[in-house]
Parts: sequence; structure tokens; C-alpha cells
Amino acid sequence: MAKDMTLWWASGSPPCWRVLIALEEKNLQGYNQKLLSFQKGEHKSKEVTDVNPRGQLPAFKYGDIVINESYGACFFLESKFKSQGTKLIPDCAGSDNNCALIALIMQRMFEGNTLHQKIAEVIMYNWRVPENERHESAFKRLKETLTGELQLWEGYLQKTPGGFLAGENFSMADVIVFPSVAILFHMGLSEDKYPKLSEYYKKLQVRPSIKATWPPTWQETPGQEIFKDI
Amino acid sequence: MAKDMTLWWASGSPPCWRVLIALEEKNLQGYNQKLLSFQKGEHKSKEVTDVNPRGQLPAFKYGDIVINESYGACFFLESKFKSQGTKLIPDCAGSDNNCALIALIMQRMFEGNTLHQKIAEVIMYNWRVPENERHESAFKRLKETLTGELQLWEGYLQKTPGGFLAGENFSMADVIVFPSVAILFHMGLSEDKYPKLSEYYKKLQVRPSIKATWPPTWQETPGQEIFKDI
Repeated sequence: MAKDMTLWWASGSPPCWRVLIALEEKNLQGYNQKLLSFQKGEHKSKEVTDVNPRGQLPAFKYGDIVINESYGACFFLESKFKSQGTKLIPDCAGSDNNCALIALIMQRMFEGNTLHQKIAEVIMYNWRVPENERHESAFKRLKETLTGELQLWEGYLQKTPGGFLAGENFSMADVIVFPSVAILFHMGLSEDKYPKLSEYYKKLQVRPSIKATWPPTWQETPGQEIFKDI
Repeated sequence: MAKDMTLWWASGSPPCWRVLIALEEKNLQGYNQKLLSFQKGEHKSKEVTDVNPRGQLPAFKYGDIVINESYGACFFLESKFKSQGTKLIPDCAGSDNNCALIALIMQRMFEGNTLHQKIAEVIMYNWRVPENERHESAFKRLKETLTGELQLWEGYLQKTPGGFLAGENFSMADVIVFPSVAILFHMGLSEDKYPKLSEYYKKLQVRPSIKATWPPTWQETPGQEIFKDI
């Protein structure tokens, strides 16, 4: 199965990392992969745009099937390999307990998109906004918005015993959200200000699927301290 | 079942509309609902923040289960009521045809989030960005980005025979993306420039789930022509 799969990815990109973690959790090691560089513009190469016309990473193929959106690829892998590896989303029909759990997993997964966007807006501000359109006040507001967002997540982890985002078991919510939490700490987020997020980060860091997919560039270069005043 | 559900929503909001359509498609008519007004700030009321601490709409409860994220609520309803009403996501295990279809549904659903964001950035620019930080060049760039995005979707519909986003059957991709397409035409998008999107809009407009949930405020007030030069 895994031999029919190819993933084009970039180191440290949360959307790419989600798919890497999902592949590990579903025991799909042995897939083909190509590590590309955003800095070198390799995501805009013909090889990538042939698979993903948006020229974005990840790009993912399974046989003739193309599924490039990271949420979609993760859902697809769970759906196709339901009974293989870690069960990332439980079945709902029939059991009310599972239904509550599915709802919590979904709620956190999709809130994870808001978290990711707010992180990306801060990281990318100077890169996306031309110099003559930049305002210190706008950048400050983005950082304040992110602070409010992180306080929400700190609160979620306080209220959810078990150490994972949806309770006692690793789930799709962790697949999706962990890479965003990791990039925050990699780029200087204070462990003292966010003790629950920090505990979560350390707990998951040693999970085999996450160790196996740790961004290779992070081992060479320390991150810029973008989030130290968040 | 439906009597245990409550939806707080606002007229014309694509995330709210998605959940309204999903509820219709899953034959869950009879749920409790409360139509609120963003203009009056009702999404920040205690009634809403008790359910959705983000103070956003939709807010959705099913018994004690809370699932406010629109993608999550739609997935949850499909998962819980799998064999009731329209099958919005086919089962994958075992059948390769269905797997290709699921992948396409997922791909379009999650690209729908990018479409929604690009639409929202144009609509909200003057509302979100303080006057002293606004730049004509920035607004123009947002509109150009949206133009490129719409050309992608026009192309998808050209290449996908059957009239729906994932082919011959209405699916979760349509539940998620249709409200974004509708808001574009409601706010002046040219039918001549985007003939396939326009055809899609007209085809789905008469579908019972969509007719039943058409934004009530749209019937009273014509939309501002924000997208006429896109």
C-alpha cells in the first residue's frame, strides 16, 4: 500500500507535518517522499504543480488519487485505513460516548485551523506585506490576537484531563494541532507563560510518530525568537 | 433526535449556512434554532458565549455535545446520521471507486476554506483594517488573489462533469462550498465572467435543502456589489 504513495513536503511546515504524522500513526512507513525547500521555490516546480496546481506543500498522491489539502489527506488516510494503526477518529453510530468524543476531536481539529492561521499571520507579516504597507500597530494587533488564542488553548488543556487534546487518547486533533504548538515553542514561546501547552509539547515530543517526523531543519538551526513576547 | 439540537446562526454567514444545509440533507428538520444578528452584536451575548466561548456563529448543541466549528458540525452530523438522508461522504474501505470520490470530496471541501477566507478578506477589509492602516494597493491585491482563486474553481467545474463539485452527486463538498459561491453572486459577481460557477449556482439554488435555508435577509435587501470587478 505505502509503496503506491508519494508525499512532497517541506521541513517545519505544519500542514506537511500533519500528513507525516498521520502516515506514521497509520503504519504506512515505506511511502515515497520528497523533501523540498520553500526557500529555493521548489514548491512552485512543475513536479509539484502537476500534482498540486496551487503550488503548495504538501502534495500527496496515492495511486491515481490526489489529495493535497492536509486536513483532507489525514481524513482520507483514516477513512481508507480505518482498522490499521492508531484509530484517530472513533466510530460514532450507536455509542453516545464515542459521539461526544468525536465532537470534541472535530471541534479541536477545526479550531486548530484558526490557531494555525493566527501563527502564520505573525510569522509571515514581514514576508507577505510589502514594506510601504506595514504598520507597527497592525503587527502588534496580530500578536495580541495570537496571545488571546493561546490562552484559549491553555484553558482547553487545563480542562481536558488525560494529556491529549481530546482526553486520554492520541487522536486526529493531536495530529492536526501538535505541529502548530511545536512551531510556537521552536520559535521562542515562553514555557512559563503557557505551562499546559508546554507540558503537552514535551509529552508528545517523544511519541514515536512525532520523533520520526521531527523537522530535519530544526535540528540544524535554532528558530528565530518570533513568539517570545506572546 | 432533532428536538435535542439547537443551532444559533446568522443570516448570510457561509459557516452558519453550511450547518443549516447539512441538517436539511440529513432530514433533521425540527431542530431548535435561533436567528441572531451580527450587526446587533448578538454573537457576543452570554447565551452564545456559554456555548461558543469564541463568541462566533454558528454555535451548535446536540444534547450535551457542543460542536461549533462548521466543518466539524457537518462531519459530526454525517458521522452520527450516516444512513439517514443524503449520504454526504461515501464509505471508502473496500472500494477503490469510492476512495477516489472521497478524496475529491475532501480536496474540494478543504480548498473551500481557502475560497471562504479569500472572500472574507475582501468583504471585511474596510471593517477589519483601521482607516490609517488601509492601502488601496493592499485591497487591490486581495481582489486579484480572489480572482485567481475563482479561476481555479471555474476550471474545476469545467473538468468535473455532473454539475456538482465532486461529480454526479451532491456531497459534503457542496454543503461546504455552495454558501461561498452564493455570497459571491449575491454581491455582484459577473455571471458572464464565470459561466460554470454561475451554472452551478443556479442548479443548486433550487435544491430543497438550499431553498429551505436561503438567507432571509437576502430576500429583503440586495447585496452590495463588492465583487462586480472580480
